[in-house]
Amino acid sequence: MATAGQVIKCKAAVAWEPRKPLSIEEVDVAPPKAHEVRIKVVATGVCHTDWKYLYEAGTAMKLRPFPLVLGHEAAGIVESVGPQVTQFAPGDKVIPLFLPFCHECAQCKSSKTNICKKNWENTQAGVLADGTSRISCRGQQVYQFLGVSSFCQYTVVPDTSLAKIEPSAPLDKVCLLGCGVSTGYGAAVQTGKVEKDSTCAVFGLGAVGLAAVMGCKAVMAKRIIGVDINPEKFEKAKQFGATDCINPKDYNKPIQEVLVEMTNGGVDYALECVGRPSIMSAALESTREGCGTCVIAGWTEADTMSVQIIKILMGRTLKGTYFGGWKSVKDVPKLVEKYMQKKLKLDEFITHNLSLGQINAAFELLTNGQSIRTVISLEDS
Amino acid sequence: MATAGQVIKCKAAVAWEPRKPLSIEEVDVAPPKAHEVRIKVVATGVCHTDWKYLYEAGTAMKLRPFPLVLGHEAAGIVESVGPQVTQFAPGDKVIPLFLPFCHECAQCKSSKTNICKKNWENTQAGVLADGTSRISCRGQQVYQFLGVSSFCQYTVVPDTSLAKIEPSAPLDKVCLLGCGVSTGYGAAVQTGKVEKDSTCAVFGLGAVGLAAVMGCKAVMAKRIIGVDINPEKFEKAKQFGATDCINPKDYNKPIQEVLVEMTNGGVDYALECVGRPSIMSAALESTREGCGTCVIAGWTEADTMSVQIIKILMGRTLKGTYFGGWKSVKDVPKLVEKYMQKKLKLDEFITHNLSLGQINAAFELLTNGQSIRTVISLEDS
Repeated sequence: MATAGQVIKCKAAVAWEPRKPLSIEEVDVAPPKAHEVRIKVVATGVCHTDWKYLYEAGTAMKLRPFPLVLGHEAAGIVESVGPQVTQFAPGDKVIPLFLPFCHECAQCKSSKTNICKKNWENTQAGVLADGTSRISCRGQQVYQFLGVSSFCQYTVVPDTSLAKIEPSAPLDKVCLLGCGVSTGYGAAVQTGKVEKDSTCAVFGLGAVGLAAVMGCKAVMAKRIIGVDINPEKFEKAKQFGATDCINPKDYNKPIQEVLVEMTNGGVDYALECVGRPSIMSAALESTREGCGTCVIAGWTEADTMSVQIIKILMGRTLKGTYFGGWKSVKDVPKLVEKYMQKKLKLDEFITHNLSLGQINAAFELLTNGQSIRTVISLEDS
Repeated sequence: MATAGQVIKCKAAVAWEPRKPLSIEEVDVAPPKAHEVRIKVVATGVCHTDWKYLYEAGTAMKLRPFPLVLGHEAAGIVESVGPQVTQFAPGDKVIPLFLPFCHECAQCKSSKTNICKKNWENTQAGVLADGTSRISCRGQQVYQFLGVSSFCQYTVVPDTSLAKIEPSAPLDKVCLLGCGVSTGYGAAVQTGKVEKDSTCAVFGLGAVGLAAVMGCKAVMAKRIIGVDINPEKFEKAKQFGATDCINPKDYNKPIQEVLVEMTNGGVDYALECVGRPSIMSAALESTREGCGTCVIAGWTEADTMSVQIIKILMGRTLKGTYFGGWKSVKDVPKLVEKYMQKKLKLDEFITHNLSLGQINAAFELLTNGQSIRTVISLEDS
């Protein structure tokens, strides 16, 4: 393209400092260096984690360097590629990923884990492999969130963190596979290995939770109990496959006790999709003695959760999932295919479509529980 | 036998109250009721849990009713059987078990758990199915510890908590399969499913820990690191298969950090065989990111352990084992066979042989780290 090798000027939502609204700015996006790909971001989901990294920086989340461009659940089109990039060409449809898949490390070669740590420290620190970001604003470096930064019309990502997807895939839908839907669905089918005819509880009915419900339904769990303090989520949860929905506020005892009673001893699988330590403990305690499994899918960087030792000693299992256990670059194209074959819902997660200029409104819809997923179009911003 | 149907007078070590030495008393052991079996206890191991229930009653352990006869790791011979007992006859060699196997409940029929709750509440409260104990002393009911009470020359146990073993088995050895060895060995091979060529850490090198080492060795783990603050345990641990032994006191940083460095990222399996919350946390934190598994085998009734959420989110698994995951009545005879075929060590655990009159000395050997297992002979008491 004509822009290859040039700095691209475009719009981004910049987070100048924690706990302040995002600001729409003109930014410079530098060309990709070796093993990097510059993409035109077409659509991005707005994930609770974006909000948390901004508004809970230094509390539930580690403080990361600012200014920062958030956004990590996106889809786009390759604009240009840097030196030594062999797998991508301009025009490819892609999903950038916050989890790499380098093909080479012990983890990538292992069937037991999806956690590839290629350039991990840099990514966490908001920079690419060479220690710098490709985005700048008014001459100042702007950090890249988890190596992605999709609240920007263009971004540059490592070629080991980019999934090439089929050309017919609608980018404003499959962007959701960049984080929330993959995480929740994988928590159930991949990490939890939820079984047919089992009884499940899903804590938190946001996008991750609904995707977990969808995963439980996909493997034909017998009973899927949705748990949320916002009963407005219940109707959608039932559309996704929840058989019952309960609101902890409706009971005068801990929700884990309610679940144990409802299920005559506890659920086989509890999926925590909130990211709050007290809910993680409740989820574990809601599982069945002897064989219950609790999967933590909700993200937090808070320190610790409290585990009742006797619950573990009596045969329960506590596991966590990172990106749903999927091998990022390798598995996301398969999830896109599943969607194209109508075996995986995505459209149903999308409650709002907004432009980049409305990003702060999208955060508001998220925090007041009105949206499941808002998809931001970067094109008409 | 001539004693069938009669009250048997014999010796027992009675715990009159918490935190006081045991007292050797003459007790009355009533005949078995329906579905009960009276056994002549031939040998009993002295397990750390016996000590803990006495000396940590109300702290690390729940307070249970006293007076009490402790002991739960034993082997004996059936003296007589109560009505409706069909599987046992006088003269049978048996191992009484604190975990039942009723054959009938959902758990017994499930391949996923070994935890049968038949008469559980009663057993925990120190009585048999009818709500009373069969042991009394000076006209007072003496509670039965976990439904066993093997620090007594005779005891009465439910027929669903008794394993019939082969007639040639030496009771003063196979008694160890009633608790510690089965628990540690099963934590590795059954609950943890430790794999060939893996790297393991075993926290605590008492009988449970050594049995865990033996389990790791049996499945051909590549590296087995024993961890104990008593370096006198190291030689024996190496005989059992430990490849390295480390003492947390030799380092000025947390032992989990030492292990992560030693193993270039953490162990594949950590087996906690102590029963202390802080060590459980350390064990979990010593496991490898992405795929590490921590199995808690050490028993405690302390409330909670602290779990670093990020460790779980990054793909680690925390599990617990109760009686090593073995289906008690069904699996213990197989473990006895394994011993008879020299595929499982038992003799090597036994450091001391004492009589019932020396029971308090056995507790002392245990708490000052001099013994691995003391086997008490009940015959020559």
